[in-house]
Amino acid sequence: MPLFTSKSQIVELIKSAPQASGAMQNAAATRQAELTKPPGSLGRLEEVAIWMAGWQQQKKPQINHGQCLVFAGNHGVVAQGVSPFPAEVTSQMVANFNAGGAAINQLCTVANLKLDTIPLDLDKPPKDLSQMPAMDDDEVLDAMNCGAAAIDDTCDYLILGEMGIGNSTAAAALCLARFGADADGWVGPGTGLDDEGVALKAKVIEAAMTKQPAVAQNPVSLLAAFGGRELAAIAGAVLAARLRSIPVMLDGFISTAAAASLTADGQLSVLDHAKISHMSSEPGHLRLAVALRKQPLIDLRMRLGEASGAAVATLLVRAACAAHNGMATFAEAGVSGAK
Amino acid sequence: MPLFTSKSQIVELIKSAPQASGAMQNAAATRQAELTKPPGSLGRLEEVAIWMAGWQQQKKPQINHGQCLVFAGNHGVVAQGVSPFPAEVTSQMVANFNAGGAAINQLCTVANLKLDTIPLDLDKPPKDLSQMPAMDDDEVLDAMNCGAAAIDDTCDYLILGEMGIGNSTAAAALCLARFGADADGWVGPGTGLDDEGVALKAKVIEAAMTKQPAVAQNPVSLLAAFGGRELAAIAGAVLAARLRSIPVMLDGFISTAAAASLTADGQLSVLDHAKISHMSSEPGHLRLAVALRKQPLIDLRMRLGEASGAAVATLLVRAACAAHNGMATFAEAGVSGAK
Repeated sequence: MPLFTSKSQIVELIKSAPQASGAMQNAAATRQAELTKPPGSLGRLEEVAIWMAGWQQQKKPQINHGQCLVFAGNHGVVAQGVSPFPAEVTSQMVANFNAGGAAINQLCTVANLKLDTIPLDLDKPPKDLSQMPAMDDDEVLDAMNCGAAAIDDTCDYLILGEMGIGNSTAAAALCLARFGADADGWVGPGTGLDDEGVALKAKVIEAAMTKQPAVAQNPVSLLAAFGGRELAAIAGAVLAARLRSIPVMLDGFISTAAAASLTADGQLSVLDHAKISHMSSEPGHLRLAVALRKQPLIDLRMRLGEASGAAVATLLVRAACAAHNGMATFAEAGVSGAK
Repeated sequence: MPLFTSKSQIVELIKSAPQASGAMQNAAATRQAELTKPPGSLGRLEEVAIWMAGWQQQKKPQINHGQCLVFAGNHGVVAQGVSPFPAEVTSQMVANFNAGGAAINQLCTVANLKLDTIPLDLDKPPKDLSQMPAMDDDEVLDAMNCGAAAIDDTCDYLILGEMGIGNSTAAAALCLARFGADADGWVGPGTGLDDEGVALKAKVIEAAMTKQPAVAQNPVSLLAAFGGRELAAIAGAVLAARLRSIPVMLDGFISTAAAASLTADGQLSVLDHAKISHMSSEPGHLRLAVALRKQPLIDLRMRLGEASGAAVATLLVRAACAAHNGMATFAEAGVSGAK
C-alpha cells in the first residue's frame, strides 16, 4: 500500500511528524563538551554531530547505509524557451548516470553513498505551468510515493537530487507561489541562461501566477500547479524520511524548493530533519534558505544539481561523526582543562 | 645536508621558487569545459582541480600520498597569562595525537592522510616575545629544516597544522609585525580567552613591538623575533613543498601566519602553491586571508588548529579530483550541448 493516499492525509502526516530525540541530542552535546578540544572549537561540525544524534536517535551517530536518490523529470514549460539545453538532455543525463559518467557518480564514490537514479515518465512531461496546472493531484501523489518507495529499508542517511531540463523554472514558480515577493528574485541562469533568458523566465513564472492565481497552500496543490514529477518525488522522499527519523541532506535550489513545498501550511518544522548542504550560486537559493531559516554548510559556488552539493556536504557529515565518535575525552587522555 | 642554510639563502630560494605548470592548468581547464555539466557549475571544485593540476604537473591530479604534519611547540609568552590552558597541555596533546585520540587523528582517517606529529623541544620554550626575541636565527633555521625534513619523499599533497599553548599570541605578533594595522584586530580568544584576556593579549603584542621595534622584513628575522618552533617548522615545510611543487593546504590563523612569514619581502606569490582551507573563527584569520588575497574554501566556524580545518578541506580536494578525473565528456556520453 502506498504511503501517501490523499492531500489531507499528507497534511495530517506533516502535523504529527516525529521529533528528534532530545535525550540523544543532549547526550551528544555533553559528549562534545568532554572531548579533547576547546569547547565549541569544531564549530559547525559539532552542530552536525548533534543533529545526526537527534535524528538517528543514538549518542554516537554514523552513516552506515547512506543513500543518494536522484530523480529525473521533464517539463512542459520548456516550450517557453526557459533553458539553453534541449529537453533530450534529461534522458541523456539519466543514461550518463547509469553509465557512471556524471559528477554525482564520482561524488557518491568519494562520499561512499549508494546512488539510485529514478527517471519519472520522461516521455510524459507535465503540462506547461505557465498556461495550466502542470499535473493533477493523482500524478503528484504517484510521484511522491515513488520518492518514498525509493528509500531503502536499511537507509540511515539520505541525500536528494534532481535532473530535469526546465526544472529551475518550476522551482522558481513554486517558490513564488509559496513565499511570494518578486518573480525576479526567484529566477536565475539555471544551466546557463543569459540575462535576456533570465528575464524571460521571470515573465514565464509571472504568467503562471496570472493563469493559476488561487492555488491552495497545500503541498500537493502547489506541486500539482507548478511542480514536476522529480520535485514531487523529492518532497515525498523528504516526508517519508521524516516519518522514519532519517536525517536528510538537501542539495541546491531545486531540491530545496521541492522540500519547501512541504512547509505550505507555514510549519517550517517539517524540515527539522533536513539540512541544506550548500549555498547554490542560483540566486533564489539564498532567499529560499533564509525563508526556511537554514544556513547551508558550504558555499563553493556550485550550481549543478544532481545532489552534487549534498554529496560534497556528506563528506563533512562523515568528518563530524568521526570526530564526535572517535576522539578521546579530557579524562581519557589525561589532558588538563582550562585554568 | 639541511635544505636551509642562511637567512639570505632563504630569500634567494623564495625569489627563484618554481611556478605552477601553465600547460597543465590549461589542459585541466579545457577538460573541465568538456565534462558533462554546465560550464562552471562545479564552482570552486573546478578551481581546486585546476590548481592541483598546475602544481602536481599533471592533467588529472590526485592525492596518492597525502601527508599531514602537525608541529608542536611551547612559548615563553605564556608567562604573561595569554592562554586559559596551562603549558603542559602542549605535551599532553602530543601524547593524545600519538594515542590516536585527538580530532586530527579522526579527520586524517576520514581524509586518508598520513599523520605525523612532530614535537619541537617542548622542554626548551622560546623566550617571552613580549620582552626579547623569542629565538635566535639558528634556532629558526633548525626548526625550518625540521619542517622540511618531515615531508616524505613520496608526498604529493601536504597539509600543515600546529599545537602550542600560547601560539595564537605568537601568530598575532608576527602578523602585526608583518602587516601592521592595530593590535586589537590581530588578537582573539584562541582556545577560549574572555574579553579581558583578549585585551591583555593585545597589550602583550603591543609590548612586543615596543621591545623589538626594528625587526627586518625577512622570514627568519620575523620568526626569530615573534615565532615559535612550530611556526618556523610550518614555514620551512611550506617553502620546501614549493621547491618540490607539492600543493599545500594551510589550516587556520596560526598556520597561515607561519606561512605568511615567507611573504616578508612583499612577494605574496611564494604562497601560490598553498590554499587556505577554512576561515577560522579566530578573528585575525579573515584579515590575514585578505592580506594574502586568498579565499578559504570552507567556513564552519572551526578554531581548533591541529590541521583540523585543512583535513576537512582535503575532503573537498578529493571530491574535486574525483569529479575532474572520472566524469565523462559530452562527446563520450553522447549528451547534447547548449542550444
